[in-house]
Amino acid sequence: MDRQQLIDALNRGRAERHCFEDLDYARLTEAVSGHPRGSVILPDGVVIPGYPSIARIHSLSAGLREQFQGHFWAEEKIDGYNVRILRHRDRIYAFSRGGFVCAFSTDRLPDLMPLSVFETEPDLVLCAEIAGPETPYLEGSPPHIEHDVQLFVFDMMRAGRPGFLAQQEKMRLFERHGLPATRIFGRFRPADTEALRALILQLDSEGAEGLVLKAELDATRAKYVTGRSNVTDIRVCSEQLLDLPPEYFTNRLMRLALFVTEHGQQGDPDLERSLGRAFLAGLDQAVERSRDRGRVGHRYRCRFRERRNALHFMAHMAATGGERVRMAPGTPRAEDGYWVVAFERVFDRMTGTLSTALSGAIQFD
Amino acid sequence: MDRQQLIDALNRGRAERHCFEDLDYARLTEAVSGHPRGSVILPDGVVIPGYPSIARIHSLSAGLREQFQGHFWAEEKIDGYNVRILRHRDRIYAFSRGGFVCAFSTDRLPDLMPLSVFETEPDLVLCAEIAGPETPYLEGSPPHIEHDVQLFVFDMMRAGRPGFLAQQEKMRLFERHGLPATRIFGRFRPADTEALRALILQLDSEGAEGLVLKAELDATRAKYVTGRSNVTDIRVCSEQLLDLPPEYFTNRLMRLALFVTEHGQQGDPDLERSLGRAFLAGLDQAVERSRDRGRVGHRYRCRFRERRNALHFMAHMAATGGERVRMAPGTPRAEDGYWVVAFERVFDRMTGTLSTALSGAIQFD
Repeated sequence: MDRQQLIDALNRGRAERHCFEDLDYARLTEAVSGHPRGSVILPDGVVIPGYPSIARIHSLSAGLREQFQGHFWAEEKIDGYNVRILRHRDRIYAFSRGGFVCAFSTDRLPDLMPLSVFETEPDLVLCAEIAGPETPYLEGSPPHIEHDVQLFVFDMMRAGRPGFLAQQEKMRLFERHGLPATRIFGRFRPADTEALRALILQLDSEGAEGLVLKAELDATRAKYVTGRSNVTDIRVCSEQLLDLPPEYFTNRLMRLALFVTEHGQQGDPDLERSLGRAFLAGLDQAVERSRDRGRVGHRYRCRFRERRNALHFMAHMAATGGERVRMAPGTPRAEDGYWVVAFERVFDRMTGTLSTALSGAIQFD
Repeated sequence: MDRQQLIDALNRGRAERHCFEDLDYARLTEAVSGHPRGSVILPDGVVIPGYPSIARIHSLSAGLREQFQGHFWAEEKIDGYNVRILRHRDRIYAFSRGGFVCAFSTDRLPDLMPLSVFETEPDLVLCAEIAGPETPYLEGSPPHIEHDVQLFVFDMMRAGRPGFLAQQEKMRLFERHGLPATRIFGRFRPADTEALRALILQLDSEGAEGLVLKAELDATRAKYVTGRSNVTDIRVCSEQLLDLPPEYFTNRLMRLALFVTEHGQQGDPDLERSLGRAFLAGLDQAVERSRDRGRVGHRYRCRFRERRNALHFMAHMAATGGERVRMAPGTPRAEDGYWVVAFERVFDRMTGTLSTALSGAIQFD
């Protein structure tokens, strides 16, 4: 992107300038001349494309038939947050979906993957999911990640070039550089409904989130999630029932019903109980928190290698989270060679509604 | 209300004129000079006040303490729809909450209560709930009403006068005229928390909706519902998840959690399962209806004594329900001395969303 295009985008409110230590960069808050929202513009004008949304299919059999013509690859969809990782001059950065340098992810990269890949592939951009119980962003975690965080690469780009590397090239680079990657389940055709049905049921029973299907010869992609991932999402977020858009919950209930009916799980008492519990356990906890502490919120904890990155993260939270984010006293705190950041995100509407209800006040509805 | 006030209200869009056979009346669509919305103005200018909203408490113990000073009566809250019943000239009418003559309720009154009460009490206005599996308005029904509909009087007014009759006078009239009334559980004080707790738990186990508490000496009133009534509401409406305001569901989940925590029912596996089933059974059925019939909707059936009332009702549905209401072919149909009206109310958003999802289409979210 040339300098004038960027200046125009900044003037029209479609881009924002930011800096992270000595890196000055811009991120697109809207699409600009073919570059999607979330794209990052580096100081030399090189554009790192925003990671595109992947469309969802709600019916496995009909979705495969309607969306794919030729072969496609099936990969695991991980329930984490998306980063793009790249080297610029001598430093390696992780950018969030929105195009910010993520101080947390950037800090932890040396723990999560071999960075030597950028020595032989300096223009590589790794698209990865970071997941685990100690992210500063997510309430839930895949069941197989017991502590801290892990990283899973699932796509690759070249800086300044649109599109992803082909599947075979990506897999070669995974292997050559020992990169941590999402599970790749193989190559399928639209008629392989039964194999994919068996696969998604296996993932459902493991507690995995689902599949991303990627056409081999064109840009077609689709995601398809397990029934249980919807219950999990509801469980980890029911404590903030009134603070999330209601569609968060209704969309997941619809997806769950579509999964259940497609895979013959109607009337399963364990599933019914787990769904009821997903709502009630979080809500009961919210009521108890409101009684005991006078507020409802979620406590996050994550750790940083470098104190200055912890401080960058805390400044970012203070700027974007406002009053709702309350750092624990003494944060960041040194522990086992890391800097631990602990904070609570307060759910305003849950806090207010429950406080009124428990006070004995009346309400017209 | 004098003629000029009514004309002003009509001109300002705060009242509407309607007729039902030879009765010309007006209803207030907004409050006008102290008369609440839903008030009915009869041809002689007599005002039948709109039935007021009753505020809700979410905590039994704190709510009693905060809302009531002296004695109050506890009555059963019935899960039906509200009517005001009165005689005008020689006919008896039932008006809906909004102030329309309800053709269905008006038609069925002779089956539901002794109308002779209006011979000795011509200016009496009975406030009643009509409930049962065969109303044209409701998807659910109290468990003890096995077929058709029943009527329960719970308040009385005098035409043209604001306020309700005192409890003792109301109870005397119930008895003297053999009127079907809601259950009255007795007279309590704010300190009677334990008795009321036992009562609401008894109602919860019966599947009743809850309590209305009415102060003896002033106009203070409050309602308090059982935990299970929230699960029931979700169960009967989950098939229309996307067609109701999302607050329908979130409010009930909040109330359920407040009930569960106040009454020590956390972690009850039967309750958890019933909540999960409440969502899933309706949603699974919606998916199956979408597959089998190409649309999602609820089928209603009710019966009328008089064919012309059935036709009035059908005309009202056509005027207010539009395309979404589909009368069954041959309606009204004569059966066992009644005229049966059967129709389906189609849920547009459920129909559209499920049809897209089942087609295999992709969706960005």
